[in-house]
Amino acid sequence: MANEPHPLRFGIAGVAAAAGEARSITAHPSCTITAVADRSQANIDAFTAQYPCDIYTEVERMCAAPNVDAVFIGTPTQFHVEHAMLAIEHGKHVILAKPMATNLDDAQLLVEAAERRGVWLSIGHTQGFEPPIFKIREIIESGELGPLRLINTWNYTDWIYRGRVPEELDSSQGGGVVFRQGAHQMDIVRWIGGGLVRTVRAMTGVWDPERPAEGVYAAFLEFADGAVASCTLSGYDYFHSAELGFGIGEGGQRVRNAEPGSARAALRRARASRGGEAAYKVARRSGHGRDPVVSHETAAPVGPSDHPRGERSHSFYGLTVVTCERGDIRQSPNGLLIYDDGGRREVEIPRTLDGRDVMIQQFSDAVVGDRPPPHDGRWGLATLEAQLAILASGRSRGAIELVHQVPARGVQGSSSLLSGAHQ
Amino acid sequence: MANEPHPLRFGIAGVAAAAGEARSITAHPSCTITAVADRSQANIDAFTAQYPCDIYTEVERMCAAPNVDAVFIGTPTQFHVEHAMLAIEHGKHVILAKPMATNLDDAQLLVEAAERRGVWLSIGHTQGFEPPIFKIREIIESGELGPLRLINTWNYTDWIYRGRVPEELDSSQGGGVVFRQGAHQMDIVRWIGGGLVRTVRAMTGVWDPERPAEGVYAAFLEFADGAVASCTLSGYDYFHSAELGFGIGEGGQRVRNAEPGSARAALRRARASRGGEAAYKVARRSGHGRDPVVSHETAAPVGPSDHPRGERSHSFYGLTVVTCERGDIRQSPNGLLIYDDGGRREVEIPRTLDGRDVMIQQFSDAVVGDRPPPHDGRWGLATLEAQLAILASGRSRGAIELVHQVPARGVQGSSSLLSGAHQ
Repeated sequence: MANEPHPLRFGIAGVAAAAGEARSITAHPSCTITAVADRSQANIDAFTAQYPCDIYTEVERMCAAPNVDAVFIGTPTQFHVEHAMLAIEHGKHVILAKPMATNLDDAQLLVEAAERRGVWLSIGHTQGFEPPIFKIREIIESGELGPLRLINTWNYTDWIYRGRVPEELDSSQGGGVVFRQGAHQMDIVRWIGGGLVRTVRAMTGVWDPERPAEGVYAAFLEFADGAVASCTLSGYDYFHSAELGFGIGEGGQRVRNAEPGSARAALRRARASRGGEAAYKVARRSGHGRDPVVSHETAAPVGPSDHPRGERSHSFYGLTVVTCERGDIRQSPNGLLIYDDGGRREVEIPRTLDGRDVMIQQFSDAVVGDRPPPHDGRWGLATLEAQLAILASGRSRGAIELVHQVPARGVQGSSSLLSGAHQ
Repeated sequence: MANEPHPLRFGIAGVAAAAGEARSITAHPSCTITAVADRSQANIDAFTAQYPCDIYTEVERMCAAPNVDAVFIGTPTQFHVEHAMLAIEHGKHVILAKPMATNLDDAQLLVEAAERRGVWLSIGHTQGFEPPIFKIREIIESGELGPLRLINTWNYTDWIYRGRVPEELDSSQGGGVVFRQGAHQMDIVRWIGGGLVRTVRAMTGVWDPERPAEGVYAAFLEFADGAVASCTLSGYDYFHSAELGFGIGEGGQRVRNAEPGSARAALRRARASRGGEAAYKVARRSGHGRDPVVSHETAAPVGPSDHPRGERSHSFYGLTVVTCERGDIRQSPNGLLIYDDGGRREVEIPRTLDGRDVMIQQFSDAVVGDRPPPHDGRWGLATLEAQLAILASGRSRGAIELVHQVPARGVQGSSSLLSGAHQ
């Protein structure tokens, strides 16, 4: 694979969730988009207007195309395993949207198939790819603050009341905050903590019968080295943790309308309107739903015209305080705040690359340089294991022991990304 | 006891920790101080100058005095059981400073002795007596926000670097943050959660060899009804949670010098000076240590001349977010912030009474009205059990099941206190 020809040619399976990835792929100097597969003609039209490329209606046919080296799979969760297997069987490298699967057997199947076939599998995009998260782990590994002992992370949002398709509200299909948001939070926490979670104890809740998937969880993770992480995710649109975190949400955007209940109210109005919830979701994704009345945080990636990348804040996945024996760390809009014997200081992190850019860079490095991406298939499987443990512990009210954990790798290697430019 | 004569006459055992209690006792219309016992003549002189009363050098002799109905025991922790037993044996009601004991057997001994002798035993003062904490529980019991499901509470302070006597830095003598601060946090969390903790899973840390007691813990509590609480207490003087909580600390005072490491630096200077750490502790307690260079939060109660009670903020024991199925609650300087379908609103709570005033009021109600104080001996024992479980889980890395828990009682009764005036 070291001699794989440049550029790395991507096929996109399922464009609705691929806007950010497409932008990052085309922004990368040695990556390009050569094909797209989607069942919606409208989606295809919109996508190819921006990114001219070959068009397929079937994922399998695109996977067979000789001018496709790698496939980004952003189709609905229930198709993840099927579509990823198709790509792998055709010898394509795969970036698979989170959650990779809804059970460990499927995840294992994918990981082993990719290894057998000699292709790279990466699970993304999660907020764990964001530069501040890499930087936190880099500081921990440097040892300057002593050993990591405690991670506290809160994310209180309006997730359950954003526009949702039915699968997103069905836990058996990978819906609810444990699958959808736990992928972010467990990736972040595992990366900061070094990866090896030993046990998980958690509470989960389904509190709105009209939105019948988990809308909240609280989890206490213990790592193999005894460090712990206390994690909360609540998507019920009451208190918003951005209120305590510079007012910034995912994607580095200001959280608008942190007024409790406003997302719920906007959804009610949308459901009563002509297009219903589906149209509302699309509008929010494309940014049209981002009027002051309608949305809290946009799920959509920020287009370059909205915010030049170098000017916006870093992405905040809630409020996280990282405690080492000799200092604490949390995010600031421009980077990190370090609290140690010398006082409180800010470490700036260039804002040129966002998490999706980092993901594409690392994936490209893997294909071209044969260097495993930090968030490879086994990493993704270990994150999924932590998510499933949250669900299991919520049911059993006991601790769940994890057995598929892998360490965070390539921390120092990835730090070069923090210089802010493509390598 | 219903015909106990007014006023309720208190003897004070150990004045160093009794400044706030003495103020609250004398402020109460039907309580008075008639005696004091302390081994330090300087302490006695200072105390009796402010509160003229009979003087004893031995606690036992004071307990035998016929003009003493109740004893406040603020002597060092290692004397708590001995002194409380003396008072009980002499038929006196007892308010015992936290932690009531360092093991459950001793606590059980006290509780049973008080019950046998027919006297009231209350454990205080903890931050669980503060009016906002009562108000939160009152809202929960009203049902207006639906069932309580999750409590998140962080308190990052400089506790381990405030001036300390040796016992405070020795866990076997009831030192360290689990005993000293866990009494506050577990009381708060148990009160808000209704009292009945089922299991505790925790991490504890001793990170500074020069301060060889627990300086940090993180605990995940599950209540009998499935609600959970995630609790962090770190006293290592890096990140201060008041930074996210209106800059207000215990006693409702502004936290000064939230600059990380400044408490550690001030302590180093104090230890190198003539009076050493002991003098520094005394200076801080009496308020003289509260210069901008020296202290973060004063351990001392606020004298009326510093802040008229009605004007200062409510006490903040860190940052707490309470989640019910239909709304969240957190503290504001003037009361509570409620986040629900109607938006975010503030509920003001009169600031006339502080937590010590509430404690004295409830204790007086118990003696005069034969109404058990909410924080009675069995409540205190249950809080101690939760603290000991944090220590045990930190050692075993497993969950600890609790068996001595009792429910929060008298919530509606105590709400009348929130009107802000003595009854």
